[in-house]
Amino acid sequence: MSKNQLPDSSLLPRFCDMGNFMRLQKKENADGLDVGILGIPFDTASSFRTGSRFGPSSIRKISTMIKPNNIIMGVNIVDILNIADLGDVPIVPGYIKESYDAIYKSVSEVLDAGAVPLCLGGDHSITLGELRAVYKKHGKVSLIHFDSHLDLGKSVFGKYYTHGTPFRRALEEGLIDPSTSIQIGIRGSMYDLNDIKIAEDLGFEVITAHKLHKMTEEELGEKIKGRVGQGKAFLTFDIDFVDPAYAPGTGTPEVGGFTSHETLSYIQQLKDINFIGCDIVEVAPDYDCSEITAYLAASIGFEFMSILACKKQCL
Amino acid sequence: MSKNQLPDSSLLPRFCDMGNFMRLQKKENADGLDVGILGIPFDTASSFRTGSRFGPSSIRKISTMIKPNNIIMGVNIVDILNIADLGDVPIVPGYIKESYDAIYKSVSEVLDAGAVPLCLGGDHSITLGELRAVYKKHGKVSLIHFDSHLDLGKSVFGKYYTHGTPFRRALEEGLIDPSTSIQIGIRGSMYDLNDIKIAEDLGFEVITAHKLHKMTEEELGEKIKGRVGQGKAFLTFDIDFVDPAYAPGTGTPEVGGFTSHETLSYIQQLKDINFIGCDIVEVAPDYDCSEITAYLAASIGFEFMSILACKKQCL
Amino acid sequence: MSKNQLPDSSLLPRFCDMGNFMRLQKKENADGLDVGILGIPFDTASSFRTGSRFGPSSIRKISTMIKPNNIIMGVNIVDILNIADLGDVPIVPGYIKESYDAIYKSVSEVLDAGAVPLCLGGDHSITLGELRAVYKKHGKVSLIHFDSHLDLGKSVFGKYYTHGTPFRRALEEGLIDPSTSIQIGIRGSMYDLNDIKIAEDLGFEVITAHKLHKMTEEELGEKIKGRVGQGKAFLTFDIDFVDPAYAPGTGTPEVGGFTSHETLSYIQQLKDINFIGCDIVEVAPDYDCSEITAYLAASIGFEFMSILACKKQCL
Amino acid sequence: MSKNQLPDSSLLPRFCDMGNFMRLQKKENADGLDVGILGIPFDTASSFRTGSRFGPSSIRKISTMIKPNNIIMGVNIVDILNIADLGDVPIVPGYIKESYDAIYKSVSEVLDAGAVPLCLGGDHSITLGELRAVYKKHGKVSLIHFDSHLDLGKSVFGKYYTHGTPFRRALEEGLIDPSTSIQIGIRGSMYDLNDIKIAEDLGFEVITAHKLHKMTEEELGEKIKGRVGQGKAFLTFDIDFVDPAYAPGTGTPEVGGFTSHETLSYIQQLKDINFIGCDIVEVAPDYDCSEITAYLAASIGFEFMSILACKKQCL
Amino acid sequence: MSKNQLPDSSLLPRFCDMGNFMRLQKKENADGLDVGILGIPFDTASSFRTGSRFGPSSIRKISTMIKPNNIIMGVNIVDILNIADLGDVPIVPGYIKESYDAIYKSVSEVLDAGAVPLCLGGDHSITLGELRAVYKKHGKVSLIHFDSHLDLGKSVFGKYYTHGTPFRRALEEGLIDPSTSIQIGIRGSMYDLNDIKIAEDLGFEVITAHKLHKMTEEELGEKIKGRVGQGKAFLTFDIDFVDPAYAPGTGTPEVGGFTSHETLSYIQQLKDINFIGCDIVEVAPDYDCSEITAYLAASIGFEFMSILACKKQCL
Amino acid sequence: MSKNQLPDSSLLPRFCDMGNFMRLQKKENADGLDVGILGIPFDTASSFRTGSRFGPSSIRKISTMIKPNNIIMGVNIVDILNIADLGDVPIVPGYIKESYDAIYKSVSEVLDAGAVPLCLGGDHSITLGELRAVYKKHGKVSLIHFDSHLDLGKSVFGKYYTHGTPFRRALEEGLIDPSTSIQIGIRGSMYDLNDIKIAEDLGFEVITAHKLHKMTEEELGEKIKGRVGQGKAFLTFDIDFVDPAYAPGTGTPEVGGFTSHETLSYIQQLKDINFIGCDIVEVAPDYDCSEITAYLAASIGFEFMSILACKKQCL
Repeated sequence: MSKNQLPDSSLLPRFCDMGNFMRLQKKENADGLDVGILGIPFDTASSFRTGSRFGPSSIRKISTMIKPNNIIMGVNIVDILNIADLGDVPIVPGYIKESYDAIYKSVSEVLDAGAVPLCLGGDHSITLGELRAVYKKHGKVSLIHFDSHLDLGKSVFGKYYTHGTPFRRALEEGLIDPSTSIQIGIRGSMYDLNDIKIAEDLGFEVITAHKLHKMTEEELGEKIKGRVGQGKAFLTFDIDFVDPAYAPGTGTPEVGGFTSHETLSYIQQLKDINFIGCDIVEVAPDYDCSEITAYLAASIGFEFMSILACKKQCL
Repeated sequence: MSKNQLPDSSLLPRFCDMGNFMRLQKKENADGLDVGILGIPFDTASSFRTGSRFGPSSIRKISTMIKPNNIIMGVNIVDILNIADLGDVPIVPGYIKESYDAIYKSVSEVLDAGAVPLCLGGDHSITLGELRAVYKKHGKVSLIHFDSHLDLGKSVFGKYYTHGTPFRRALEEGLIDPSTSIQIGIRGSMYDLNDIKIAEDLGFEVITAHKLHKMTEEELGEKIKGRVGQGKAFLTFDIDFVDPAYAPGTGTPEVGGFTSHETLSYIQQLKDINFIGCDIVEVAPDYDCSEITAYLAASIGFEFMSILACKKQCL
Repeated sequence: MSKNQLPDSSLLPRFCDMGNFMRLQKKENADGLDVGILGIPFDTASSFRTGSRFGPSSIRKISTMIKPNNIIMGVNIVDILNIADLGDVPIVPGYIKESYDAIYKSVSEVLDAGAVPLCLGGDHSITLGELRAVYKKHGKVSLIHFDSHLDLGKSVFGKYYTHGTPFRRALEEGLIDPSTSIQIGIRGSMYDLNDIKIAEDLGFEVITAHKLHKMTEEELGEKIKGRVGQGKAFLTFDIDFVDPAYAPGTGTPEVGGFTSHETLSYIQQLKDINFIGCDIVEVAPDYDCSEITAYLAASIGFEFMSILACKKQCL
Repeated sequence: MSKNQLPDSSLLPRFCDMGNFMRLQKKENADGLDVGILGIPFDTASSFRTGSRFGPSSIRKISTMIKPNNIIMGVNIVDILNIADLGDVPIVPGYIKESYDAIYKSVSEVLDAGAVPLCLGGDHSITLGELRAVYKKHGKVSLIHFDSHLDLGKSVFGKYYTHGTPFRRALEEGLIDPSTSIQIGIRGSMYDLNDIKIAEDLGFEVITAHKLHKMTEEELGEKIKGRVGQGKAFLTFDIDFVDPAYAPGTGTPEVGGFTSHETLSYIQQLKDINFIGCDIVEVAPDYDCSEITAYLAASIGFEFMSILACKKQCL
Repeated sequence: MSKNQLPDSSLLPRFCDMGNFMRLQKKENADGLDVGILGIPFDTASSFRTGSRFGPSSIRKISTMIKPNNIIMGVNIVDILNIADLGDVPIVPGYIKESYDAIYKSVSEVLDAGAVPLCLGGDHSITLGELRAVYKKHGKVSLIHFDSHLDLGKSVFGKYYTHGTPFRRALEEGLIDPSTSIQIGIRGSMYDLNDIKIAEDLGFEVITAHKLHKMTEEELGEKIKGRVGQGKAFLTFDIDFVDPAYAPGTGTPEVGGFTSHETLSYIQQLKDINFIGCDIVEVAPDYDCSEITAYLAASIGFEFMSILACKKQCL
Repeated sequence: MSKNQLPDSSLLPRFCDMGNFMRLQKKENADGLDVGILGIPFDTASSFRTGSRFGPSSIRKISTMIKPNNIIMGVNIVDILNIADLGDVPIVPGYIKESYDAIYKSVSEVLDAGAVPLCLGGDHSITLGELRAVYKKHGKVSLIHFDSHLDLGKSVFGKYYTHGTPFRRALEEGLIDPSTSIQIGIRGSMYDLNDIKIAEDLGFEVITAHKLHKMTEEELGEKIKGRVGQGKAFLTFDIDFVDPAYAPGTGTPEVGGFTSHETLSYIQQLKDINFIGCDIVEVAPDYDCSEITAYLAASIGFEFMSILACKKQCL
């Protein structure tokens, strides 16, 4: 059993000592961990509403409601995995390049310690910094990208680094392999009629929301597994994949999205994927309703760690 | 036609004289009533967020939007049933045993008058007080329990009486028959990997959310009817059965839940059940969004009374 | 390509110069336009919550998030259509007849210029004023009416003109042809057990929510096309058709409704209808959650204009 | 001691059986009462934000926090006065003349029973209906008018009856004596540079906010007593007299206003005035913050009744 | 200079690593500390609104805005004092006696380590538990009590232990010396006309809000110093002392209160008092507006620690 | 009389055609204007909460409540001044230097047309861009700076350009004359005990909140006039000068501030100052309560323009 257990909720109510993810211990570094949880409170690259700098704090607070056992997957994540909260990356608000450096450094430390980083954003621009660290450790990886937006812009406002461009940059920098990557949930009005084709021409597979609404969760699971295979994969989950009814607390919501049940079911389909990292981004608590968005984000993190626990349990 | 009619909404706007459920008359006692509506504003036993003490007030206020006719069931509930609002039980905030006594007394009075109590919570601990009164009048009954949680804890914080333990206590006190009872909608992370098995070992049937999401409403209806049969049944509806997108106003929400349409459809499937009481609990209006949770709770109450009206109409 | 283009979002962030629908140009009149967008901030006829007077402003503000391309329909609406925002109708708060005159005048001007009016309410009473103008221009039209309510009351509070009576009045005034009209999404408790039959006796086809929840979007599309045919049709969309989880910002919400995805899919099914006008009503932003209702309303407007663009493109 | 006592808060928590003002009894008529509390949920005449139709309900709900003793004035109001809540006037939303008739009728009944009406608005237009009833009973009275606006418009939107015109109409109808009336707290930008002079030319004394901020509460008390004398007086209190920091829940707030302490002190200065009626208007709970506006309005009502109690006690 | 410094805000933005008070280090015990900060998230004893269980979390989060230097008092509190956050007391929600034991134990540990406890509530009942620990360590102390309520009830709902009775119990248990104690800010309607006299008969000095509004801050300072002298004193600050405009986030707000500037000035007057402990109670964040109440509470804590720093600096 | 009049509010309700400041005309450039209103929705340089990018939109929307006459100053601002809304500066979110260039360009165009710019922020960093334009046109000017913070940091997060450093940079760039400049309202905890002395050493006069709370408004007026004299002056108003009770909608609020009445009175004292520009910054509407912050900001703009009108009227 892991040394990093949660406080006993039957002795210490869950509204006590809130602050770390699931009230796990705070650690200075990732030595000996299976999973290191990092907050990345950077929202400078947001094109519309900001405020995801308070995302990590909001997700951590409500994550106190999560208990350690996943009965669908049959695992107790804190028994199987050694997990700790590593606090926040010292990003530089207002300055994206400096923040990328800080993200790169912090994520690298987690990876170098042999742990899987679970990053809580922040806007979607942060994924580029994370992927640079992932590439250094693991080489090119597959990307499993849940989002309502492609985030493949050449530039926004004439600038290369924004929350609308991270995956175009990741491609250009050779960090990800588009031929084993997939973008899921894309929808809404677009800047260009050919936006999906542009993504496909760059090598991605795209499952639009239009298509996904007609698929079962198992069909999506098969699709992703067929695409990604057994290679190393990074999960990047933009909370605006979910419909704003279920996740109002975000910067650029898009109607016509998915329910919380569908969302969790899709993640549960990924239990055979070989994940080496994950982020959950774009939670902006000032737009949330009674923490429902933050709690869903925390629950996605829980499902992700459950997959890691399943894998470790089988070893 | 019942003597207790609503004010005429075409003469008195629905935002006038709000306060009683559906603007029904307030009565001092249940004499001659078919249904007695009781508020039970007790939330001391909440383990996380409190505030359901304002639940009855919130449900009553927005229930002014409900009109008397249920076109799916084909009944006018105020024509068929004699219904009144009996006000709130004089519970003792901060003191659960004293509050159980008050609940027992008030619910007993309704039952003794021959009426069906429709109780508006309040946290889920209140059901134990109600079931004690039900047992005195009717003996052991079947429980139809909609919830995201089992509420079968041995204790919480070392205490026997909390909103996480009422049905364990009800079993121990012999108030309900688990072999004809059913728990529906259970989901989320758990304290114990065996929590479902524990419930089953205690004698309950459990329909997890995972299962229910793959069933039709008719299949659930059959399942419940098969389980409960023609015996006396009590409906206890925890609003966190519903997904937080549809019911954010509650203390321990759980993602992956059900829609308002599914919820109402499930209740409509119960029209052959022999109900002798009902409660709707855990509405916490401070977490609600524009009263959507409270209105859904009121609508569940309306559907429940429609079932009673159908039954009486057939007699 | 239309002369009325949007500001370039890659140069001018979408939170700059907000105010007009999709940041389109404001025009004094509809000359040369294909679509004229009119705000009708009238909410005096509301029977329960008011506040839809701020609906047009709220929809316009968040509509800045809409981009011009509809990838499902394959059209760029601002390239194909000449669209402008015509500002608000100078209604008279507190005085419905005078407001009807103002609405009639403004909508007539749009129609006389050969443009299609897209009206943003305001409560549902405004549709009567619009239909009078439509009738003058086009004669009797078909009505495609999405709503949770029939809005066919003889009177409310003894008054003929309210937001519960517009279509009864439209029938009496001979403005619409009920035999080619359809009401979709009707649900909830009713004042009369025969309310649906009353609507049918008046000549309407009614698809209740109960029925619609069991139909596919394609089946609804066929139903509507079969009913309306190739005649001129007016789309009136009450946002309370949508479930309050997805559209809390409205005056008389009704649970058991439809998702944002279903809603947009239903509109997309209407691409063969010969529309001569549209309104989207009952958005009350004081009850909204982070603008999700307003953004859905704006998105419905976008889908409607996409249909017009498809049609024009095919000519 | 009065027969109409409050429920014992030491037995029945104040969040139980909320609904009537201070949880007083609901009565069908004013027979035998000293004070009759009437809700007048009419907001059709609002020129900007609406929603004061929910004002009476909101004030009543939070008034449960008020206890019966006023230690500054040295009175227990429910011991000395016979007070009851008479419910809401059946106004007609959307129709001001019909609503004036309903208000006139209800207020007349209170006056004819020998009671003092304490009316909870509703927008400020309602005062005209009340003053018509007051005039019938008492003849011309003095007006003590706290407000940030003069409400003396000739017309608004070309209409005579709005919430910006009641006192111009009252003058024209001869209901009040301007030479013994006073308007207090007037401030903000104006439609006409001469607006104050216009009020003075009509016969009113005006104490602008600019002046009042330089006066003590005692000086204001003297000013009012000097103006009104021992004649019959009606207090009309628009909550926007108070600064929006203290009373955000209103339709047309105005900065530069007064604190809650100043407000209550001003009312306490009026203990020698011979009041025959009162209203408290323009509380719009959708704009309130945690009921602080509603509670201040309830507290003003409590201070007003304390004055009546002082007077009765001295008899 | 103290070893417990804050993170450098010029390197780590203040929205990073939030969670502890002022982002101070979390410590397991008070060894070597001058001040130990304890959260006491207990709200079971609330008579009206609950939710102060989330008070400590809310105060800690926004306290990140506080910097270490107090320029009015001329001290850097973290240089002079050794301060740490000791986390939350493991109270038992729903059970007041067990919670008193837990509070007693935790506060005793801080006192026994020679540190001053700064407790963040929680409802006002918690002070009794704290005072029991203070008494054990220091014997009878003087109480400086800012509040709108006396909290001297004999019982509430027939119960001795509630948030309306702590100081009556403290007197009975001999924990405080009323003859050197003072209650400040008392106001609002009362259950008994003699409530002030009752407090005085028990030995307290009472400064009502009515009186305080006519005093300068220096006069209050003199009054308190004259009363308390150089003996050991405990500061108990109920946030509802402040007007709800400045502190809406509380359970039983009372209008007619004090501004944030007055509040801080009053605390600054206490710099000669010999404090051995402090609590700040009744912050209920669900009723707050953009954290203004929580930030004021944090600022009061900062002023209190500044007094301690002044004293230590002078030694 | 100016050609740029407002829509007639007696014909077009104030909630119609909202969007421009006071519903003034939108103009492409400042030719012929006395005052040009510019939105500067830039918030990238915020150190804590962001969201002031929606400040201009929020201020414009509620500014519809402002009428043209200032009865204290005796001017109708739209009759005397030629005012228009020039829309928003095309800033580049996430990139401060590029945004400074855009601000410089837009403000220069207003100044070159001979108009006074009234800029609506945005965070306080924008003032540096404005002052560069002002310097080019007018040379060194005096700064009248209302704020709770000095904004004189050498750097924040190791960066020179943030919302905590604009006036240090302005000094270094020689844009302002500190010897005729003044900072008013400074308060709260500080990073350095010598922060005030540092400001004074840089040449500024500083009126702390501590001092100002003991001054009359006239004394402040004399102080400012004595300092600034008849030279050209720029007013920069950070809304956090005001207490959070009156202005909760801001990024770094500070308790112990000023009321809305005090704020407006202070501005009115400045009527002899020779203003050549103004900005009002740090309004963050997501943290506002029912638009009270935005309306106060709009009212400050109205008072500023009233001063310009007084001056022009006297010529």
